[in-house]
Amino acid sequence: MSTLQGVGVSPGKAAGPVLWVRDRLPDPAPGPAPADPAAEAARIRPAAEAVAQRLLARSEAATGEAKAVLEMTAAMAADPALLGNAEKAVAQRGLPAPRAVFEAAGEFAELLAASGGYLAERVRDVHDVRDRLVAELTGTAPPGVPELTAPAVLVARDLAPADTADLDPGLVLALVTEEGGPTSHTAILARALGIPAVVAVRGVLAATAAGARVDGAVGTVELLEHAVAPESADRVGARWNGSGSTADGHPVKLLANIGSAADARAGVEAGAEGSGLFRTEFCFLDAAVEPDAETQRQAYAAALRPFAGKPVVVRTLDAGADKPLPFLDIAGEPNPALGVRGLRVAFDRPELLDRQLTAIVAAAAETGAVVSVMAPMVATAGEAAWFAERARDAGVERVGVMVETPAAALCADEILDVVDFVSIGTNDLAQYTCAADRMTGALAALNDPWQPALLRLIAGLGRAGRERGKPVGVCGEAAADPMLAGVLVGLGVTSLSMTAAALATVGAALAERGLPDWQEAARQAVAAPGPAEARSRAGRSLERG
Amino acid sequence: MSTLQGVGVSPGKAAGPVLWVRDRLPDPAPGPAPADPAAEAARIRPAAEAVAQRLLARSEAATGEAKAVLEMTAAMAADPALLGNAEKAVAQRGLPAPRAVFEAAGEFAELLAASGGYLAERVRDVHDVRDRLVAELTGTAPPGVPELTAPAVLVARDLAPADTADLDPGLVLALVTEEGGPTSHTAILARALGIPAVVAVRGVLAATAAGARVDGAVGTVELLEHAVAPESADRVGARWNGSGSTADGHPVKLLANIGSAADARAGVEAGAEGSGLFRTEFCFLDAAVEPDAETQRQAYAAALRPFAGKPVVVRTLDAGADKPLPFLDIAGEPNPALGVRGLRVAFDRPELLDRQLTAIVAAAAETGAVVSVMAPMVATAGEAAWFAERARDAGVERVGVMVETPAAALCADEILDVVDFVSIGTNDLAQYTCAADRMTGALAALNDPWQPALLRLIAGLGRAGRERGKPVGVCGEAAADPMLAGVLVGLGVTSLSMTAAALATVGAALAERGLPDWQEAARQAVAAPGPAEARSRAGRSLERG
Repeated sequence: MSTLQGVGVSPGKAAGPVLWVRDRLPDPAPGPAPADPAAEAARIRPAAEAVAQRLLARSEAATGEAKAVLEMTAAMAADPALLGNAEKAVAQRGLPAPRAVFEAAGEFAELLAASGGYLAERVRDVHDVRDRLVAELTGTAPPGVPELTAPAVLVARDLAPADTADLDPGLVLALVTEEGGPTSHTAILARALGIPAVVAVRGVLAATAAGARVDGAVGTVELLEHAVAPESADRVGARWNGSGSTADGHPVKLLANIGSAADARAGVEAGAEGSGLFRTEFCFLDAAVEPDAETQRQAYAAALRPFAGKPVVVRTLDAGADKPLPFLDIAGEPNPALGVRGLRVAFDRPELLDRQLTAIVAAAAETGAVVSVMAPMVATAGEAAWFAERARDAGVERVGVMVETPAAALCADEILDVVDFVSIGTNDLAQYTCAADRMTGALAALNDPWQPALLRLIAGLGRAGRERGKPVGVCGEAAADPMLAGVLVGLGVTSLSMTAAALATVGAALAERGLPDWQEAARQAVAAPGPAEARSRAGRSLERG
Repeated sequence: MSTLQGVGVSPGKAAGPVLWVRDRLPDPAPGPAPADPAAEAARIRPAAEAVAQRLLARSEAATGEAKAVLEMTAAMAADPALLGNAEKAVAQRGLPAPRAVFEAAGEFAELLAASGGYLAERVRDVHDVRDRLVAELTGTAPPGVPELTAPAVLVARDLAPADTADLDPGLVLALVTEEGGPTSHTAILARALGIPAVVAVRGVLAATAAGARVDGAVGTVELLEHAVAPESADRVGARWNGSGSTADGHPVKLLANIGSAADARAGVEAGAEGSGLFRTEFCFLDAAVEPDAETQRQAYAAALRPFAGKPVVVRTLDAGADKPLPFLDIAGEPNPALGVRGLRVAFDRPELLDRQLTAIVAAAAETGAVVSVMAPMVATAGEAAWFAERARDAGVERVGVMVETPAAALCADEILDVVDFVSIGTNDLAQYTCAADRMTGALAALNDPWQPALLRLIAGLGRAGRERGKPVGVCGEAAADPMLAGVLVGLGVTSLSMTAAALATVGAALAERGLPDWQEAARQAVAAPGPAEARSRAGRSLERG
């Protein structure tokens, strides 16, 4: 038995058998040449078929974004061009099948990287498919998080968003990583799900152990030679009473982010009081032409129905150069994230927006959901007023806009004068505030939702909302971090919309302190010189409070 | 004689002969097929040679960025791959030479567009070369601004930055455009150069006239059947006494932006008190490997020498995914403007920064220029502190950072606690604040330097600088707009660095009002709901003041 010290990033205690998450496979060797190249090449298709089938089976159990990620990965694993190139490399160059797949996928990834924009972001997915195919062909376990069948403590170098797409939080007792910090994806995920977690545990990957005891508050990991029965205690989410408010009764709407009817059902089951972000892109993603108003009405109604009598904020189409849709036919741009996207698409094609607004209003009337509508990617009060007029003309009663650009946050007063509410998209707002691409790993620290610059913009929005008695919501990743959720409320945020899985943890954490405590924690965080100090000062303030 | 009404955007009166700036050429016809394809194909190289020579001759008379633009365009006009493809299209497909060049350039442009990032921004240049080659082959005048040999009133649909790269402001009596608005490139350029200008003059392109009288204050254009002798009056710049201050003696450093020794000489001649932005990229642009410290020292010394005894702010290398340099070998990114650029490049390669700092310190000692050093693309106080420590270790006495990200502006207090000064790059700061690519024409209105959101960030920086007695400079395009320059001073900006050509106009405008007038104009602009209102409210405030 040995005890390793790391950084506790999500409180709670747990013990159980250890499941090691494998590192990336070594590159397959380019030789020796197969004795029978035709037979070697013939191994590739069945292996690809097996990988694709396994991914599809997992996708059937998943919902929302996880489902889409798994389906897309399955399709890529069975891509005829990729497999054909790999077979050619075996037949013509005498490579072993694993190496042939490795090289064919590498060329594909290079092409994607060179084409820039949206396609370049798919490189990570190609590498994932490549590793799965190579593992299948070499008879080894694929890298990444294995499918969990029993409760376990996961130990990994670090976890990427793709690793955790369909993780069953009910089976993860605790998370332990060799690398990462308080704001890594692992830490954010763990806090969102209320799972104890310790990061930066130097040496844990080199250790061997069958079981582990983890204390996410003090940051210790006890490694045990023998497996231990699963147990967990002090999980924050278990204590949620199901209603959103601070300890002193200040109400905060706790809502679910949804992008489909399945998400909506999951949100209601998890106790969401409604939805603060209904993404409508699902209705357009596979469409070669714009779906007509009737098709849209039906799709929206299916997602609104579970929320009959409850509030749902529908976001109009958020597509553009960064998220291309075939029928929009938007030219490539040097910086898609700074391009014609979101509401900007509608300035040249207002009739597209009008048709969507009509379909939303009809779906709302039919389902009895209490629908508001908001526009994405607004930068000025003039844009907000333009959208509000069109939405009201279409019969929308409550109109708002997303605040994703620093400009919109800096013009909070003028924007709240022309709309009924705003909703802060913290992921994009952080990206633009620090001018750091959310997708670029090297810049992850700048996209930390605890950046004081981001908190200062939110504080301005909170003040503007309070002065006018108009709601200010948050629907980015920040809402799912329990302590940050409380700090946001302290800054004047009136609703938090998040992944359904995070609702219980956030609800329980929020109810632990009164509003004045959260306000003091918020003051401390806003005045901090950096994100790590913001988090630790808020934490210390709450300990004292 | 007829008088047309437009929008006056730059005051002053002028009269003179009219020079019409041609619109884009019509696409050359794909037929009839030439009788002798070989002879037709042989016309292409001499035409390209003539175009390239003409551009090179103009480049010899130009300096700085204009020179680079013209040299690059000349090289593209003589590109063997482009000319070879055009010749093939004549020989194999029987196209007339102009059409063959048109199509070959079109394919080239498509390739560039598809490759994304920096290369996609070169599409505009390929189209320019294409039009010049087609004009040469068809014996027509090329589009764009003709080379001026005598003073004239320019009349155009609108002017793009490329149209005006080597315009001789001494020969432009006035600018008149059919399109555009108060914040178009034409308007900004005219104000920067103190040239009278009227935009949005509907019908002027359909008119015929030999001469014109322009009043840039009231927005009238009198069209005359006969040419009229050149005259100009009320030009603002003519009244500058050469020292930077408001009417009541509040000093404001008026500085030149430079990127070469030639720029430095032009700056000194124009009366600059120093340089607020010395771009060091020129020393790296053509280098296959990093230039050694001695090469760098010599290059910097040549540009510093004209400013002996005067202040110069040297900016360390601003390269990265958006401005690739061969020896940096940076991978393509989906959004280069939000990527690893500026100081971010140095986090992984601090020794590159250290070598540059050493060369700058040596060049300063040798030339007697009073050198400060600043880092580009800083987002947090932590990054600023990191840079300041390295710079001071290298012997730099006065260390600052650029404020180009909203985050840096929002953390003005913490950043000014760790550096000696800040300099606001308004072009990038506007781009990130509104999340709108500077290079995307459709989003130009969002990049207006009069956006209240941008002015609010600058106001925060001005306050933080005043409280600490530390300088806050501006070195973006905003500094060259005379009224905006005064508003910036009203917000607390202590130095303005701009293109040398704008110094006299800005200096004269600044001296027309006392600091309290500029402060009141600034208050009006900051509180405006949009950029047009900001400009008009500031103008009305000054009229009353």
